[in-house]
Amino acid sequence: MKICLAQLNYTIGDFEQNTLKISDAIQEAKKSGADLVLFSELAVCGYMPDDLLDYDWFVEKCESSLEAVAQSCQGIAAVVGGVMRNPGKGRSLQNVACFMQNGKISHVICKTLLPTYDIFNEARYFEPADHTEIIEYKNVKLGIAICEDFWDIYNDFEYKESPVQRLKNAGAELILHPSASPFHLGKAAVRDQVFAGNISRFSLPVCYVNQVGVHTDLIFDGDSQALNAAGDTIAELPYFQEKMVYVEYADGDLKGNKIEPFFPEYISTLHDAIVFGIREYFSKMGFKTAILGSSGGIDSAVVQALATEALGAENVFPVLMPSEFSSEGSITDAELLSGNLGNKTNIISIADTYHSLVQSLSESFQDKPFDVTEENLQARIRGILLMALSNKFGHILLNTSNKSEMAVGYSTLYGDMCGGLSPLGDVYKMKVYALANYINRNGEIIPQQIIDKAPSAELRPGQKDSDSLPEYSLLDEILNLFIEERRGRDEIKSLGYEPAVVDRVIQLVNRNEYKRYQSPPILRVSGKAFGSGRRIPLVAKYG
Amino acid sequence: MKICLAQLNYTIGDFEQNTLKISDAIQEAKKSGADLVLFSELAVCGYMPDDLLDYDWFVEKCESSLEAVAQSCQGIAAVVGGVMRNPGKGRSLQNVACFMQNGKISHVICKTLLPTYDIFNEARYFEPADHTEIIEYKNVKLGIAICEDFWDIYNDFEYKESPVQRLKNAGAELILHPSASPFHLGKAAVRDQVFAGNISRFSLPVCYVNQVGVHTDLIFDGDSQALNAAGDTIAELPYFQEKMVYVEYADGDLKGNKIEPFFPEYISTLHDAIVFGIREYFSKMGFKTAILGSSGGIDSAVVQALATEALGAENVFPVLMPSEFSSEGSITDAELLSGNLGNKTNIISIADTYHSLVQSLSESFQDKPFDVTEENLQARIRGILLMALSNKFGHILLNTSNKSEMAVGYSTLYGDMCGGLSPLGDVYKMKVYALANYINRNGEIIPQQIIDKAPSAELRPGQKDSDSLPEYSLLDEILNLFIEERRGRDEIKSLGYEPAVVDRVIQLVNRNEYKRYQSPPILRVSGKAFGSGRRIPLVAKYG
Repeated sequence: MKICLAQLNYTIGDFEQNTLKISDAIQEAKKSGADLVLFSELAVCGYMPDDLLDYDWFVEKCESSLEAVAQSCQGIAAVVGGVMRNPGKGRSLQNVACFMQNGKISHVICKTLLPTYDIFNEARYFEPADHTEIIEYKNVKLGIAICEDFWDIYNDFEYKESPVQRLKNAGAELILHPSASPFHLGKAAVRDQVFAGNISRFSLPVCYVNQVGVHTDLIFDGDSQALNAAGDTIAELPYFQEKMVYVEYADGDLKGNKIEPFFPEYISTLHDAIVFGIREYFSKMGFKTAILGSSGGIDSAVVQALATEALGAENVFPVLMPSEFSSEGSITDAELLSGNLGNKTNIISIADTYHSLVQSLSESFQDKPFDVTEENLQARIRGILLMALSNKFGHILLNTSNKSEMAVGYSTLYGDMCGGLSPLGDVYKMKVYALANYINRNGEIIPQQIIDKAPSAELRPGQKDSDSLPEYSLLDEILNLFIEERRGRDEIKSLGYEPAVVDRVIQLVNRNEYKRYQSPPILRVSGKAFGSGRRIPLVAKYG
Repeated sequence: MKICLAQLNYTIGDFEQNTLKISDAIQEAKKSGADLVLFSELAVCGYMPDDLLDYDWFVEKCESSLEAVAQSCQGIAAVVGGVMRNPGKGRSLQNVACFMQNGKISHVICKTLLPTYDIFNEARYFEPADHTEIIEYKNVKLGIAICEDFWDIYNDFEYKESPVQRLKNAGAELILHPSASPFHLGKAAVRDQVFAGNISRFSLPVCYVNQVGVHTDLIFDGDSQALNAAGDTIAELPYFQEKMVYVEYADGDLKGNKIEPFFPEYISTLHDAIVFGIREYFSKMGFKTAILGSSGGIDSAVVQALATEALGAENVFPVLMPSEFSSEGSITDAELLSGNLGNKTNIISIADTYHSLVQSLSESFQDKPFDVTEENLQARIRGILLMALSNKFGHILLNTSNKSEMAVGYSTLYGDMCGGLSPLGDVYKMKVYALANYINRNGEIIPQQIIDKAPSAELRPGQKDSDSLPEYSLLDEILNLFIEERRGRDEIKSLGYEPAVVDRVIQLVNRNEYKRYQSPPILRVSGKAFGSGRRIPLVAKYG
């Protein structure tokens, strides 16, 4: 039996294009002599429509799209993911994989394990499967395990059942594993573990198909794979690209030589993911051009370089907005960077507007001293100017905050926190440096002095980030323990970190939840990003 | 048996104060001769800690607080809600009500139905109960139904089990119903239906205790009640206040005369809820003073009046920020309003800053005509000025957008969408008028001309809201059908609305998801508010 793994890029809710894409793939696979094509989870509607599922028309479209795709399955079978109404009691919908043949849906397989943690909310919508079903096709007993159904061995908590065990018990010979598995750095290793773990438990070959693309903050990397019953990878699809590949099942196993699975190198993958994330976000939002504030600092330099790679030099518009506190170097460094990247640069001084605002506020402020208010004023004038250019010319404003700043609130709400997308909001500062060095791997693109100079917001004379914050190497470690690893304050101190520093960092993180509540969407590249996967109440008193 | 219903106001994560409050209430109830005190769901930690539950220390604090409270239960019993670790398989936590007596926790009752819809996410954290347990105390068989466990008959979908049925089957004579049931307009009628429905099914008396207070966007109204086996209310606690009340259980039922349950009148309750919401949000955030932009329009007038009621006239600081497009009336009306309310008013013209910005941008803009960019500039200058005053003096900025504007994006991101809290973001425009009239019920507070004049953003000459939007009476109806009732476009058209208007309104709502992604927390007063209870992907293409 020849099986096609179709790794495609869907748009949430675009039933027409998604259906067309799936049907075309089926026809292409048929021409190539495939017996079966496997698509990803929720393929017809894209993963994840969230509360669009509350609308009946959306679910009806989902069901009619599945029906329409089924009609194109003549002389070939397909497994296509979607949402259908639950005919029984419980939640009104089910997350299904439809087995299609002879122009019809012959089997509807429901998902059993509904991930409801981090960025997943499936228990919000779906009723789990209440039985196990095997599909016999071309004399092969197929078991379908939708995404989490194969991930029962992964979580912090222990699932009460193993859908793959039940499929094995029911006689499955081959597992089809349609998924929508969002990317984060380190996820590949987890996937390998899960595949190895469940294959060694059940000695069953697996065809895994993931979607590829970007849905708001989530990046889907693809990396679909076929693994034989010994756990060897015999086919693997690329990261961040649509592609179809064919594998052969015969005599109880997937055929083909073992290949060395691609092991994503940390920084290059981070780089590729963000470039892909920016490109896809713009393309799916229907935008071509980006604007950003270019400060001469490392964060905006890296965003500018990544955006240029994603969108093209002619589509990225850096704006230099010096104030009286900007160093001479900031401007020349930023100009040098734009020259290296080939971006057309705009310089707009904020000095006049700053003085106009200070003047307007002078009566109200009386003689109160310069403080964070005036620093924020400068950041917010820059936000206004960038948004004005965004509005006038139809650019998306790229936010340039990194995760360390977002974490401790070293950023101005409605100022440098403005933006339609935050490419670095899930990347700690030390990793931003690593990205800069990677960008320069074949020659200097980001001027070395931008990488070398001490980080500064340049919002008052002689300001350095290290005046207010611990060194980033230390800060990032504590943040990682607190945010990604969810260690408590006492636990972090017990690891040997200076108690006063730990207290200060955690206090800053907690105090600044209110800013992050209003932050732009952040491309998720870690296992715990700020955004919908991390929900902390604002009105609270704790830790 | 004398039972105390203790309707208290908890702060999420403030274990020390919550525990003290609960222990004090137990001692007070004991002095009053009570045998049992009933507290609300998750009382020790406050409902709902969300991802604070991912931290071990938080759960440990929860458990140790429950132990500490139990020690104070000598000669009296208490039912206290909290979170405990799940000793079995499945999710690592459980939502529990601890029955405490003789200085110990004698029974741990788990919640069975875990609401996971709208603003609820309990399946994210908790494993449901796997058995039913009756507590015999003073010769009465008590059944504990935690919040949703009593609401099995309410939802759009059908729960697969009825915890109350199981308690009845196990011999329960009295249902204790600790809850954390957030307020929305119309919820009281739903509650009455649920109580009546389940009491008529099981003929069991019920003691219902809700928490009172504000947790970020959620308002908890209290309204705790005792109902006898005939479904008559025999005790009811007030809305929006802490209070304890005593009821007597004897001879198989709660004793006492039937009282007429309080039926919340729509506009007065909306008014009281928002006033309570503002007061509580400020108090729990540790702030006393509010600032807002006072435009002379209805929305800011209503926010200013509600904030004045919540915080006191001396703590509300309206700022008038006229531009060249402001009408003379706007300023005089706003001043009249502040005079009526007794607020100290500040006037800061935005003209100079506006011209400075336009000048700064002139080279970039070349000769492009005045458009929404320049309108947004004005709104954003106001945002900057308000945030500067907020920063300098430690006020919270109140956002003045209403739900109709939020829905169709008739608002400027980082401009009039700024704020720490949005009191009217869940109130449609027509209801804002109703609130204004209610505020004036005993005499003119909001000048009548503010209520009477045609709504205008005053961002260009002669602008009226009705230039861009349908009349609000029509707009609000369509929005309500689309957002609250989740009707599709075709369904709304089939009700007789002009198809082009329906298309335009829905398109505006969909297109502006990106703005709402960055909106301030909105006090939730409807069954479907913008915010965490409504999650629509930004990257999508749909209806």
